[in-house]
Amino acid sequence: MQLSDSPGALVQTFIDLLVANQVEAACAMVSSDCEYDNVPMGKVFGPEGIGASLGPFLGGCTSIVWDIHRQVETGSVESGVVFNERTDRFQMGGRWIEIPVCGIFEVRKGKITLWRDYFDQPTFRDQLGGGA
Amino acid sequence: MQLSDSPGALVQTFIDLLVANQVEAACAMVSSDCEYDNVPMGKVFGPEGIGASLGPFLGGCTSIVWDIHRQVETGSVESGVVFNERTDRFQMGGRWIEIPVCGIFEVRKGKITLWRDYFDQPTFRDQLGGGA
Repeated sequence: MQLSDSPGALVQTFIDLLVANQVEAACAMVSSDCEYDNVPMGKVFGPEGIGASLGPFLGGCTSIVWDIHRQVETGSVESGVVFNERTDRFQMGGRWIEIPVCGIFEVRKGKITLWRDYFDQPTFRDQLGGGA
Repeated sequence: MQLSDSPGALVQTFIDLLVANQVEAACAMVSSDCEYDNVPMGKVFGPEGIGASLGPFLGGCTSIVWDIHRQVETGSVESGVVFNERTDRFQMGGRWIEIPVCGIFEVRKGKITLWRDYFDQPTFRDQLGGGA
């Protein structure tokens, strides 16, 4: 990351690493106390918590595509906020799961300090085949 | 609304009217083809659709408070986008229902043309007393 990058560019790089299944490299972009709040499912904290939460799930996917429909940012990588509207798509077991998401990221001193995703849990869970 | 207002100020005015239960005045701020997408619950369109969807629900509340935790905007009221993170609180039957929401608004030519709210439907439904 260049310090001249915008917070939105930083978040885009973070997402590029996640969808490339480079979870460890992505987690190097978050602060030691970063909050990852998957709103209806709960929170984990820091690179280890986020890696432990995301690694097994992303590692079980044969392909990952997150379509960012729009993204708005304010501030800088020293202190900024990014909102984006996405469809997160995961290929698992030969089929695609799609989740409409609205995400919020806080960036402080070049690191992601908050990542909060709003989505409907049944929309995700029902596609996993679990039903209610 | 002054044409010099920002899209964020326009959205704030729209929300101020909704929480004041002035649904008709709020609906005068949306375009004739405005899409209101309550993501897990579906879409309605235009002032009539939005009024018919929101009016009875808001009218059944004894108090309404939407806490806007943060809001980011881009563009102008001619062509702009607003994201906000909120807790929408509704007092009904002597108790409060609270819903964490991430909202997206598109503004064109001084009117709201899109309002899309991301939230977890069970978080809302379970508080209504319906359970699963």
